[in-house]
Amino acid sequence: MKAAVTVRLKEGVLDPQGRAIEHALHTLGFANVADVRAGKIIEFTLQETDPEAARAEAEAMAKRLLANTVIERYEVRIEP
Amino acid sequence: MKAAVTVRLKEGVLDPQGRAIEHALHTLGFANVADVRAGKIIEFTLQETDPEAARAEAEAMAKRLLANTVIERYEVRIEP
Repeated sequence: MKAAVTVRLKEGVLDPQGRAIEHALHTLGFANVADVRAGKIIEFTLQETDPEAARAEAEAMAKRLLANTVIERYEVRIEP
Repeated sequence: MKAAVTVRLKEGVLDPQGRAIEHALHTLGFANVADVRAGKIIEFTLQETDPEAARAEAEAMAKRLLANTVIERYEVRIEP
């Protein structure tokens, strides 16, 4: 089954990439935009048929490698 | 209103970051994982009350700056 882990910086953690994007958007004339935050999404296939087992495995992967839980939070989505 | 643009490499485009993550996951013992693809998600606030106008503006931002449409595709999500 397919899974996705979305990793975002925690609230309050400075996001230089988001700041740079926001500045570039303003420069391009997109004056309406604010609070830009940049995150990543890691999508993959798991050879696993049980959704609960797949979720547990994706969470373990997020904790071990995909997210730095000191400054980032992650969200796991499982698609059948 | 809040908006999110998810940017992914198009199918068939080599994803070295995804490959590196997959290799690292295998090394850590996550043998079930395959087809890892890495993308990015840009979340922001738009000072705009009309969802259709917000979507059009987010799409313009994606085309102008957030995605390289030669090798990437993007998806816009608007949250009220």
